[in-house]
Amino acid sequence: MFCKFRLAVIQLQVSSVKADNLSRARRLVKEAAGQGSKVVVLPECFNSPYGTNFFSRYAEKIPGESTQVLSEAAKENQVYLVGGSIPEEDGGKLFNTCTVFGPDGEVILKHRKIHLFDIDIPGKIRFQESETLSAGNSLSVFDTSFCKVGVGICYDMRFAELAQLYSRKGCQLLVYPGAFNMTTGPTHWELLQRARALDNQVYVATASPARDETASYVAWGHSTVYLADVRQQIPITSQRRNDLYAVTSAQEGSS
Amino acid sequence: MFCKFRLAVIQLQVSSVKADNLSRARRLVKEAAGQGSKVVVLPECFNSPYGTNFFSRYAEKIPGESTQVLSEAAKENQVYLVGGSIPEEDGGKLFNTCTVFGPDGEVILKHRKIHLFDIDIPGKIRFQESETLSAGNSLSVFDTSFCKVGVGICYDMRFAELAQLYSRKGCQLLVYPGAFNMTTGPTHWELLQRARALDNQVYVATASPARDETASYVAWGHSTVYLADVRQQIPITSQRRNDLYAVTSAQEGSS
Repeated sequence: MFCKFRLAVIQLQVSSVKADNLSRARRLVKEAAGQGSKVVVLPECFNSPYGTNFFSRYAEKIPGESTQVLSEAAKENQVYLVGGSIPEEDGGKLFNTCTVFGPDGEVILKHRKIHLFDIDIPGKIRFQESETLSAGNSLSVFDTSFCKVGVGICYDMRFAELAQLYSRKGCQLLVYPGAFNMTTGPTHWELLQRARALDNQVYVATASPARDETASYVAWGHSTVYLADVRQQIPITSQRRNDLYAVTSAQEGSS
Repeated sequence: MFCKFRLAVIQLQVSSVKADNLSRARRLVKEAAGQGSKVVVLPECFNSPYGTNFFSRYAEKIPGESTQVLSEAAKENQVYLVGGSIPEEDGGKLFNTCTVFGPDGEVILKHRKIHLFDIDIPGKIRFQESETLSAGNSLSVFDTSFCKVGVGICYDMRFAELAQLYSRKGCQLLVYPGAFNMTTGPTHWELLQRARALDNQVYVATASPARDETASYVAWGHSTVYLADVRQQIPITSQRRNDLYAVTSAQEGSS
């Protein structure tokens, strides 16, 4: 069922110079492919500093400059490229959007973050994505020749139902580009990944921007891959009581 | 919404002498109540050693000897008593059953473990509850004057959907008497509790038998209460995308 392949998560250093971010990403995708990676994951907001005040300035149409670079990088290196996310402008609205490219350079998926991150911890952090961004409305699954992959962005990982649905749809790998911060990072980043992996017995991979303590929003880093390959030993799929409960999607398909 | 109250989890030493287990439990419920506890939780299989070879020997009808002791302990001490679990015999079948008593000594809930624990890790542990026990078929929620409580037993905690349903039904506290072991304890016990608490922003309490390294089944111990009181700061309830997915119960009510 599950073929072996090498997965790379790129904990990219993200600066305020978009062209630098793009060329750095391109170089590292090539390096990962050179080491045998077949699926490469970039972090959330890899072409722009993360912050509501940056999104409109760095936003692009899709296709556009950044996705063109991603497409070429995927094709040149013959990899599946999960293009982290970029601020996307469409119809006057902004989205936090992940595009996925196949080894032929064609876009095979576009996931707009479906759970916007609003947090307000007095004295610690206030951050309201929903003041600037619009949410996507689609579940996002793609097929590689190795396995089926579910995609979420950052805070999407907070919602167990999404991972459960992806797992029920046959995904064996969940990928979350994410920029957790110095408050939510230490408390939730590892816990959520381990929980998603354990609950669904799937692999979970996350890609964060590198930590930059001079940035206005300091990313936690700690990009990680979690394994949960105990399906035979503890057969939760057959032990799950679908006669008592179910996780269902209100909407099928991907955008 | 949530009144303050003291909760006690009793990490009971469980021996092979049922009468001793019962009297010890009774004494500790009294001690907990004396310290102001209003809800007291006993561990899974508190009146019997844990093991498929013990269940039939220690099994009782409900009501029976053990639940009589629990009823009296609840009434004498004016507490809600979550009576861990006992092997129950009913109609020729065995169940792993938790009874909950109100401060008046009346039984207010009976939860039969709905997810039986079968594990087979070669060279480490093999344990198949389903060879001996039958599974319950009901979700189990009870109301105290303080808050609504959802009850599961041990491996029930492994299934995120159950906690999600309890949370959607208004539970602010989830209680899992559980006897994890020296294999599943270190890998899953803490992770599952933190995940259930974080995902649903509820309190999670677990009660394990005390670790007895001379027992045939060595319980992990580490009874715990996890808090997740950040509902205002990170309002996941409103952020959840019920337009995209839902967790539903196929069956309402409790036995």
